[in-house]
Amino acid sequence: MNNTFDPMWAALQPIGRDRHSGGYRRYAWTGEDATLREWFAGECRLRGLELVEDRIGNQWAWWGDPDTQPGIVTGSHLDSVPDGGAYDGPLGVISALAAIDQLRTAGFEPARPIGVVNLVDEEGARFGVACAGSRVITGAMTADRALALTDNDGISMAEALRSAGRTPGDVGRDDETLRRVAGFVELHVEQGRGLIDLDSSVAVGTDIWPHGRWRLDLPGEANHAGTTRLDDRHDAMLALATAVQSARQVAERHGCVSTVGKVDVEPNGVNAIPSRVTAWLDARGPVEADVRAAIADLTGTVEDLGGTVGEESWTATTVFDEPLAQRLRTTLGEQTPMLGTGAGHDAGILSTAGIPAAMLFVRNPTGISHSPAEFAELDDCHAGVAALTTVLRELVG
Amino acid sequence: MNNTFDPMWAALQPIGRDRHSGGYRRYAWTGEDATLREWFAGECRLRGLELVEDRIGNQWAWWGDPDTQPGIVTGSHLDSVPDGGAYDGPLGVISALAAIDQLRTAGFEPARPIGVVNLVDEEGARFGVACAGSRVITGAMTADRALALTDNDGISMAEALRSAGRTPGDVGRDDETLRRVAGFVELHVEQGRGLIDLDSSVAVGTDIWPHGRWRLDLPGEANHAGTTRLDDRHDAMLALATAVQSARQVAERHGCVSTVGKVDVEPNGVNAIPSRVTAWLDARGPVEADVRAAIADLTGTVEDLGGTVGEESWTATTVFDEPLAQRLRTTLGEQTPMLGTGAGHDAGILSTAGIPAAMLFVRNPTGISHSPAEFAELDDCHAGVAALTTVLRELVG
Repeated sequence: MNNTFDPMWAALQPIGRDRHSGGYRRYAWTGEDATLREWFAGECRLRGLELVEDRIGNQWAWWGDPDTQPGIVTGSHLDSVPDGGAYDGPLGVISALAAIDQLRTAGFEPARPIGVVNLVDEEGARFGVACAGSRVITGAMTADRALALTDNDGISMAEALRSAGRTPGDVGRDDETLRRVAGFVELHVEQGRGLIDLDSSVAVGTDIWPHGRWRLDLPGEANHAGTTRLDDRHDAMLALATAVQSARQVAERHGCVSTVGKVDVEPNGVNAIPSRVTAWLDARGPVEADVRAAIADLTGTVEDLGGTVGEESWTATTVFDEPLAQRLRTTLGEQTPMLGTGAGHDAGILSTAGIPAAMLFVRNPTGISHSPAEFAELDDCHAGVAALTTVLRELVG
Repeated sequence: MNNTFDPMWAALQPIGRDRHSGGYRRYAWTGEDATLREWFAGECRLRGLELVEDRIGNQWAWWGDPDTQPGIVTGSHLDSVPDGGAYDGPLGVISALAAIDQLRTAGFEPARPIGVVNLVDEEGARFGVACAGSRVITGAMTADRALALTDNDGISMAEALRSAGRTPGDVGRDDETLRRVAGFVELHVEQGRGLIDLDSSVAVGTDIWPHGRWRLDLPGEANHAGTTRLDDRHDAMLALATAVQSARQVAERHGCVSTVGKVDVEPNGVNAIPSRVTAWLDARGPVEADVRAAIADLTGTVEDLGGTVGEESWTATTVFDEPLAQRLRTTLGEQTPMLGTGAGHDAGILSTAGIPAAMLFVRNPTGISHSPAEFAELDDCHAGVAALTTVLRELVG
């Protein structure tokens, strides 16, 4: 085997890595993102793939002409959550390029085009909406809404695009791009413990749990921390404490998971009673009605505190294309596990838009993800490349 | 009366005011701070007062020569908490200058020097330690510790001083400055509801509650918000919720007040379980042992969560100079209320350093402070100037 995976993996290690945390900070339309996009374009150029950018800047690299005949696309994303791991996203992009190399080394000639994609802004770390790149081109999010999203510094996506040398007016639903895609296979590190005890390096994805994000606005009244009697206080931090505990309790009650991962406190001074806390909630679960019930219960608690709960995004259950998933399993062997996931992915957005999509998960020996400690054994990564190569050979042979 | 208070008050209104909150963001050694310092120097120049800066940059303006005979100083500070009010600090500085004007208009000739001071970095909003200016010159905080303090952007006080054109090597205990001060009277807006029902514009301060700041480090483990089972989580946000509620409960139990006003979450991403939360606690009360007991109880809870509590500052009960306070009351009339306060002040730091110090409080009709809503009636502000004028006339006559 001509191992092209390892050098690509090594090349990406330093980009956007924080020295203190050891995690990655690769946010959409930043300098780190530009470096990663240039790296991707360079790898595509090396392989003679034809690189096309769609209306929001997702990078599609083609082996063969997808305007003659729609192709099979593989790939993932290169951006990260704050202090994220090295695998979430890049493993799928690098594995896609390595699989192309495997096919070519073997002298394989595809009967239909193969594409490799780097989808932008999958994590939503900067502007708050995950899978922004795939949502916009499929029309799941309008250009107006996307461009008006702002980051923590108040910079809108439109401004960020301009700063990155792009034209916000180009952004929008992109049917021409979607027409080229006959199917999509995204390889991704597993983000839970599903594969640990199954003695398998790779699984085929079945579905993505319904999931959403909500914004909790919790009011208080600014006042002096030393001179205001406890009974006279309206302390937004106490409201946060109640909301955080409620979020956990309603998740337990309804068989979901929920997380308050991000908060913003005003004025955030040691000797000032908080006048406002904004908190963001992520909730998911196997059953849509249960997630909805958990949010309804939490909303009651937050409203009792004088606060509000606003939905920022909601993605219904996504069941991947069953014939495609079954075909992948048959190709890889019937022993290959089938796994659902609580994590959202671009494959889910494309699937909802009507593109047959599937996923391959690579074993994660700790189950830890969205953390500097995220990890996969190199042997399992190589097994992932081999599985993706096998699957592509089947789908375009 | 030649009213010089009102135009000075109007001049300071726009400096450092945030358009959105309506509150002030006047932090030590920033551009706003430089503007305020220039304003103060200009007002002193207009009045022919001799301006001297001490080793950390507190501004002392003298009417008469304090090296011939130590003088009576009045004044306060011009910095603010985040989104603070207009009165906390500036009321004392402006009233001091206006009182000088009143004395001069009346043709008064002081028998000993009078000083007006603008003390730097009283709120500790930027570097976390309140009363930094008075602590350093009295030796209550060493220069090494002060210079190494860092703000939210990781900028040390030493770097901030350099950026403001100052020399960090100059900073330190300043006995020469302290020798010039025979007594200190700080006028300040009241920060509670003590004067509301007493039908008095002004009170004489008696003591400052013991108070301190503690840092709570709450550990967690970063992980994916969608794929990590509730039972597998180590969520630092849940630890914060417990700590915030405990801080309130122990304050109720021990008759204190406590506030978690500032938090820092890592990685602070919507879909990442928090790996660490740092929270800052402010606690105060009339009785030292009770505050200590509350912190001990809270520390037990935080340690059970795997976290730590570290003391960042502690100031024991400060009883102001009793003969001086009594003299102020006699001068103003025996009907003048005597009030303690839960707020720390430079007057307390100077008092602890052995300088006879006293305070005058001006009525606050809502009790709200450290908030854009902080307020005092203009008539009460004028009454404060009159009281301060009377007191100075008595002390230097």
